[in-house]
Amino acid sequence: MTIPALRDVPGVAAQAPAETTGFVFNHTMLRVKDATASLDFYTRVLGYQLIDKRDFAEAQFSLYFLAYVPAGATVPEDDNTRRLWMAGLPGVLELTHNHGTENQDGAVYHDGNSDPRGFGHICVSVPDIEAACQRFEALGVTFQKRLTDGRMKNLAFIKDPDGYWVEIISNA
Amino acid sequence: MTIPALRDVPGVAAQAPAETTGFVFNHTMLRVKDATASLDFYTRVLGYQLIDKRDFAEAQFSLYFLAYVPAGATVPEDDNTRRLWMAGLPGVLELTHNHGTENQDGAVYHDGNSDPRGFGHICVSVPDIEAACQRFEALGVTFQKRLTDGRMKNLAFIKDPDGYWVEIISNA
Repeated sequence: MTIPALRDVPGVAAQAPAETTGFVFNHTMLRVKDATASLDFYTRVLGYQLIDKRDFAEAQFSLYFLAYVPAGATVPEDDNTRRLWMAGLPGVLELTHNHGTENQDGAVYHDGNSDPRGFGHICVSVPDIEAACQRFEALGVTFQKRLTDGRMKNLAFIKDPDGYWVEIISNA
Repeated sequence: MTIPALRDVPGVAAQAPAETTGFVFNHTMLRVKDATASLDFYTRVLGYQLIDKRDFAEAQFSLYFLAYVPAGATVPEDDNTRRLWMAGLPGVLELTHNHGTENQDGAVYHDGNSDPRGFGHICVSVPDIEAACQRFEALGVTFQKRLTDGRMKNLAFIKDPDGYWVEIISNA
């Protein structure tokens, strides 16, 4: 669809309000059962970097913030500088771990793709989707949809340790 | 937490695998009941730009891709060029509209914050959080948590038309 046509889609504002200048879609938050398993998946399998961790001992939860550091950027060492830097970064993944859920039997959280539905997935784009999917296979990652499944041969879905769907598309 | 300490968190990979170079956390997908209402909210209230729309007439759904266009960037006019450009962009919001849900009574989708829980929220960071929240009030946006509510005075939560929580934090 052309850009002028996109502007005419019902509901779309004629232009972004000046008051929203500098707004950034910073992060998406998912609850996870087992922080160790999720950090392993998002850092070792998907290559995210852990940028911050915040513990709330009294309320018994911890927050983990992961991101792909943009090429050429350096993660600030200083905590406060890093938090401010991270707040301006698009594409951060926040994982919430409620302490103790890792000891529960079975799945703790709902992936949103069966009733009641809502959230669908996150998506990671990759330079070489064939190589990426072969590597996921080799690493024993669970697939929801392989490249060869169904009619859409240019995308795959893998599952994170909680069963959340991660779409894989090409960015090259 | 210092960067060396973050590297020692259980589960965290020693370094991002070379095979994940060029991976981008591209988007988050949420299902929405009424595309017009959601596009109004995300473009007029939050200032996102509609970058792409894809219609699947046979399967009776449409996809809407929204993003904050980075400063200095220009959205490519050509469809294919724009899609490739968008695939490399972090911080895209994909809204899925299953045709006809807008005619159903009441809420259609689950926000993830009551049982069964899972997805928690998305977050938009803003340069002036006081001004942003005053503007949301003036626009009649529903708040889940105002800046003045609770102990955390530096963040707010508003709700989108489906009730999904949108955290508002400062990036300045």
